[in-house]
Amino acid sequence: MTTSVRIALDAMGGDHGPEVIVPGAALALARHGDLSFVFFGDEARVKPLVAAHPALAMVSTVRHAEVAIRMDDKPSQALRTGRRTSSMWLAIEAVKKGEADAAFSAGNTGALMAMVKICLHMTPYIDRPAIAAIWPTLRGESIVLDVGATIGADAQHLADLAIMGSAMARIVFGVERPTVGLLNIGTEEVKGLEEVKAASRMLREMALPTLDYRGFVEGNDIGKGTVDVVVTEGFAGNIALKTAEGTAKQIAAYLRQALCGSLWSKLGYLLARRAFKALEAKMDPRKVNGGVFLGLDGVVIKSHGGSDAVGTARAIEIGYEMVRDKLLTKIQESLADRAGAHNLPPAASSASLPS
Amino acid sequence: MTTSVRIALDAMGGDHGPEVIVPGAALALARHGDLSFVFFGDEARVKPLVAAHPALAMVSTVRHAEVAIRMDDKPSQALRTGRRTSSMWLAIEAVKKGEADAAFSAGNTGALMAMVKICLHMTPYIDRPAIAAIWPTLRGESIVLDVGATIGADAQHLADLAIMGSAMARIVFGVERPTVGLLNIGTEEVKGLEEVKAASRMLREMALPTLDYRGFVEGNDIGKGTVDVVVTEGFAGNIALKTAEGTAKQIAAYLRQALCGSLWSKLGYLLARRAFKALEAKMDPRKVNGGVFLGLDGVVIKSHGGSDAVGTARAIEIGYEMVRDKLLTKIQESLADRAGAHNLPPAASSASLPS
Repeated sequence: MTTSVRIALDAMGGDHGPEVIVPGAALALARHGDLSFVFFGDEARVKPLVAAHPALAMVSTVRHAEVAIRMDDKPSQALRTGRRTSSMWLAIEAVKKGEADAAFSAGNTGALMAMVKICLHMTPYIDRPAIAAIWPTLRGESIVLDVGATIGADAQHLADLAIMGSAMARIVFGVERPTVGLLNIGTEEVKGLEEVKAASRMLREMALPTLDYRGFVEGNDIGKGTVDVVVTEGFAGNIALKTAEGTAKQIAAYLRQALCGSLWSKLGYLLARRAFKALEAKMDPRKVNGGVFLGLDGVVIKSHGGSDAVGTARAIEIGYEMVRDKLLTKIQESLADRAGAHNLPPAASSASLPS
Repeated sequence: MTTSVRIALDAMGGDHGPEVIVPGAALALARHGDLSFVFFGDEARVKPLVAAHPALAMVSTVRHAEVAIRMDDKPSQALRTGRRTSSMWLAIEAVKKGEADAAFSAGNTGALMAMVKICLHMTPYIDRPAIAAIWPTLRGESIVLDVGATIGADAQHLADLAIMGSAMARIVFGVERPTVGLLNIGTEEVKGLEEVKAASRMLREMALPTLDYRGFVEGNDIGKGTVDVVVTEGFAGNIALKTAEGTAKQIAAYLRQALCGSLWSKLGYLLARRAFKALEAKMDPRKVNGGVFLGLDGVVIKSHGGSDAVGTARAIEIGYEMVRDKLLTKIQESLADRAGAHNLPPAASSASLPS
């Protein structure tokens, strides 16, 4: 690693492409002067955008990519057309080659997942990747994982998710020993799926120094912020994430309807509009931006497809923090602790996918 | 069935007990004159409450029950102390004996589930019960099931849930052929769990006259109201329900904080307070009241533990509609259609639990 944190960006991803991603990088740079960038994408489109931000242009390289993965491409299609040629692939490959410390994309999650799995190796001891989301809560923020990288999980994978999520939480929230809960239905120890119960026993027995396991949590605990890290398998995690997103949009629509109802309520809205701005900021989907791929031998950040420059900057900064505070090392140390406790062989590299 | 719709009530269930349940019944009666009631509970406490509502007293019987199941009793504990003696058990048993058309409880869901499974038989062709919730959406309301009766589901059970949920939707929403979606992650046919994919093929092939299968939906489609009936297994369904509840509370808290921020925003709140009342009404958890147990040979309604009289009345009315519009017959007809299409034996009664 050089003294700067080098981010490789898929400049063509997301609903808005380089017109949002380049200004987002400029914003992130303004806050973290030790960032540098490699943009992959349509050179003719990206170069002038970068040139428009002189400070950014100083620390950036633009590399041409022939292909841009579309938001609605199926993963198989994306691999067929974009393997080795797309801006998405090249950004990931830059991490693999050591030319960048983290890859960033706001593109199609399915395609990104497929490319990441082919291009990068798994972390030792881990056999399946996960996506961790940063979720706004009443207490601040929590990390929820897996929000959809892999479906289904045995107890071991759930325990791995707890370890990886905690390593991320130590960096993002700056706490020594993040609190961790397993998502379940009902908080009685008797309830729930067999694998969730087994993971609970496993986490209690491990008694790791890097996380504080608090037992089961329910869906409504996520918004409360009951724990720093909420662990679940990818199907339930994705449904929780999307349901929360849907509920937030639903309530925002109710609020708009309610406030357009009468002259008094419109006037009330005008008077309280600063409060509403604050509310909107809290309900802002950009806040849940910056999903982090975990379980890989590289840092890969997924930004929301619809993000603007502010959301993009936030996602880039998460990548920056993950590199600066050594996410991969923290995960490996925690996994080694656990492996030591269980005498597991560090042979999970055999489970990594071919590059 | 007599000409009146007879509801057996567990008067002791819920956070507030008979002080809320009796007035709730009075409210429901005011809207549906053909209701009659049997209250089970502490006679000394329930009788005076019923007597305070003369119209209600005319159509009600109060029967003493020694035991009241507590909200925090574990199901095993509830069965030990309350089988054959509790107000909850006796209300269910009244349905079994044909003394009532539907049972109502605002009590502990786990205990209610355990008792229902022991006391009632399963519907032919169905081997596991489900709980269906009525979920407020931007289009009105949808039915979401299973929200936690049983964990995990094979394709057959998911198809059964679609059939039962549609029968309920035909009654609650008054539509001929409700639209149905299977909850999944991503709407591409390739994604998701094997059993969800198999259920999707099954529903397409059945092409039932009683439901309009629309394919996969995602978590955010629930709040949008994309389909009338959202089908999922109990673990994911419960997590979706609780996550939405948590998100709604979280946003309500943000809204309160935002509006208490400054003098202007407080004044704005005063001016817009009617709009806020309307918003609160829409976000009202009582609206999701009235979970219906499906797959049994009796109608059982679960009201939210924290409901007030209005929420209680709403849940009772759902029970009323289910009886009046013959939910059980509708379910059986749809199941027989499917069984006809697949040449299944009507032998699922062998799968019913011992009473």
